[in-house]
Amino acid sequence: MESECNLSGGVTAAAGFQAGTASAGIKYKIKKDIAVICSNVPAVAAGVFTTNIVKAAPVLVSMERIAGGKAQAIVMNSGNANACNGEQGMGDALAMASAAATVLGIPEELVLVASTGVIGQKMPMEKVLLGIRQAAGEISAVGGTMAAEAIMTTDTVPKETARKIVIGGKTVTVGGMAKGSGMIHPDMATLLCFITTDAAISPNCLQRALKHAVSCSFNMISVDRDTSTNDTAVVLANGFAGNPVIDNEGDEYISFRDVLTDVCVNLAIDIARDGEGATKLIQVETRNALTLEDARLAAKSVAGSNLVKAAIFGRDANWGRVLCAAGYSGANFDPGRVDIFLGNEQVTKKGCSVEFSEERALEVLNNDTVRIIIDFNIGKYDATAWGCDLTYDYVRINGDYRT
Amino acid sequence: MESECNLSGGVTAAAGFQAGTASAGIKYKIKKDIAVICSNVPAVAAGVFTTNIVKAAPVLVSMERIAGGKAQAIVMNSGNANACNGEQGMGDALAMASAAATVLGIPEELVLVASTGVIGQKMPMEKVLLGIRQAAGEISAVGGTMAAEAIMTTDTVPKETARKIVIGGKTVTVGGMAKGSGMIHPDMATLLCFITTDAAISPNCLQRALKHAVSCSFNMISVDRDTSTNDTAVVLANGFAGNPVIDNEGDEYISFRDVLTDVCVNLAIDIARDGEGATKLIQVETRNALTLEDARLAAKSVAGSNLVKAAIFGRDANWGRVLCAAGYSGANFDPGRVDIFLGNEQVTKKGCSVEFSEERALEVLNNDTVRIIIDFNIGKYDATAWGCDLTYDYVRINGDYRT
Repeated sequence: MESECNLSGGVTAAAGFQAGTASAGIKYKIKKDIAVICSNVPAVAAGVFTTNIVKAAPVLVSMERIAGGKAQAIVMNSGNANACNGEQGMGDALAMASAAATVLGIPEELVLVASTGVIGQKMPMEKVLLGIRQAAGEISAVGGTMAAEAIMTTDTVPKETARKIVIGGKTVTVGGMAKGSGMIHPDMATLLCFITTDAAISPNCLQRALKHAVSCSFNMISVDRDTSTNDTAVVLANGFAGNPVIDNEGDEYISFRDVLTDVCVNLAIDIARDGEGATKLIQVETRNALTLEDARLAAKSVAGSNLVKAAIFGRDANWGRVLCAAGYSGANFDPGRVDIFLGNEQVTKKGCSVEFSEERALEVLNNDTVRIIIDFNIGKYDATAWGCDLTYDYVRINGDYRT
Repeated sequence: MESECNLSGGVTAAAGFQAGTASAGIKYKIKKDIAVICSNVPAVAAGVFTTNIVKAAPVLVSMERIAGGKAQAIVMNSGNANACNGEQGMGDALAMASAAATVLGIPEELVLVASTGVIGQKMPMEKVLLGIRQAAGEISAVGGTMAAEAIMTTDTVPKETARKIVIGGKTVTVGGMAKGSGMIHPDMATLLCFITTDAAISPNCLQRALKHAVSCSFNMISVDRDTSTNDTAVVLANGFAGNPVIDNEGDEYISFRDVLTDVCVNLAIDIARDGEGATKLIQVETRNALTLEDARLAAKSVAGSNLVKAAIFGRDANWGRVLCAAGYSGANFDPGRVDIFLGNEQVTKKGCSVEFSEERALEVLNNDTVRIIIDFNIGKYDATAWGCDLTYDYVRINGDYRT
């Protein structure tokens, strides 16, 4: 079953979803910084949250509420992470949900919360609540793209995508938006991802599909190896497509899972490409590893290595750093069997240097996307990870140098 | 028992050790790039090597030879890592040891080998062997400092130190040298550390003491989180001090272990301070953690966080990044009990922001050494880790940008 790709509309592409935004002036005077996404009816919900032991208040609120497998709306802000704010932070996160619920006319337990921005500063609640009331009052079925803009921080472009697929004779749409260009200037980073779909699916199947999608996408990108206090990926499924409910892991589940994964991979690549200060996307493909875990560990390690990232910025065909980063990843392999390719150009054979064309290697390194392929020649598992180069601008953005 | 600190002489400070150097032209025409350290008699030997699955040929040779607990000399070069060179690399590493043994007139099995520099390039053996013969032929009891210079790559200063302590009524000297300013421009990184002592000690006790020393020193520094193919820490103990042999974990073992640790910590701090492009040393002290492992994990995670490092470069009192990096370290703690201090200035209390003097925080951040203290208030274990700031120069050095 082929899916239709890269439709517009993001989180409002699927039937029965609306979104609204506001400029509350949380950090910048004129930037959109509040968004509300709402399903016309209560939806099946699933979420994956940061593994950081330090979790922001909105993460704690959303984790508890989503445990029941149901939600109807998400309220979010950029400019302040509402992390490390103690009891007051929890109260503020609950107040945000409550304000949205009142305007939307839905139970506040069905509202999830997400924040991104500065850590350890109190939320300017007067502005925030005003913004939420405005955003919730102006939701519309074409508000998706503006919502994607509202959650940007150091992101340079909004990130959204959508797909259509036929499941059980019905057209199902999956759309999403994301933010996160590394740990975010000036204080905190966050990966936020919100997916909406009109598929009819059980809470268990939705949670399982999301976990799979995240493991192939957001868990396979590395901008700076710092895991935030606010990372959140949430999917709402409202059943408006009218397909028979997906409640077991049959073919229809696989179709849905794959299109959800496709949406997440697309957003993840957009995030990696838009990494802070990045000039290039690095795509690391590991092949023929002993286990899937080995394939993933090695790919992520290479994509996240400062030395590899700096070499790619410098357009240096430095395969030694690639092999080295695979070597300390924890993946099990035989260094004497490893082949490495830069694009189509083989640079390492059985763990040793081979003669290669510097000119063709430089061509590969001049591309916007640099592909590194590592073939372990030892098993049958493949993985792909994405990262970006390490540049002067990363240091400038995150150094926030005081003059 | 107090030890005497920071004596000169490095690896030739202890009795019965000599060192020689040569400029073989391996990478640069006029830089010293070969060193030979030799004990006047066969010595008890212990070593700790890289955990990277990709190990350079000299590491494989030295690991095998040191397993017997005995060695007499170490031959080393900078400018080429002799890593990922397959069978030929192994042959070259063995030939280096053999050339040194011939000139020194000792069994070649007692010679260890170490290399640092570019990965994946064949060793220019003609130059290397010529250099080794010259260095081994010119060993002297005052050659320590020149040997420390010979193993520098992007290091900006040679790193050596020595201590004296009385053990069993005899004065024991422990001296050492090290290199490594992160993963090293242009291709590869390495931490090399060589310690010599005239203590009389059993192989088991020496190995145990070295492991302890490394766990508190070289394993607690982070320049860029990339673990090299060539990391090597070796100690030779030739017994010239004439103390009763240390062969159990009594008081004399503790005295020796602590002075060895002191030497290693001193060298480790020098390495962190001289990190590639670094302008500041970052010292992260974790306190009152639940376990030693928790204390170490959190300290290392904070010292190694790109975001913390960039914030320190930018003199930004960004405690949120500190707490966040502790949070994803794997250490177990309660975020609501954590206090954080920048120098003496408290910036976080029970996981929340406290009012602090921006001016005094900036004073702390203007120091050459920036101390960050994290008190978990949950147990009784402390640890210290060291790192350096992330600067434009790190990117420049490792980007090797092609124009």
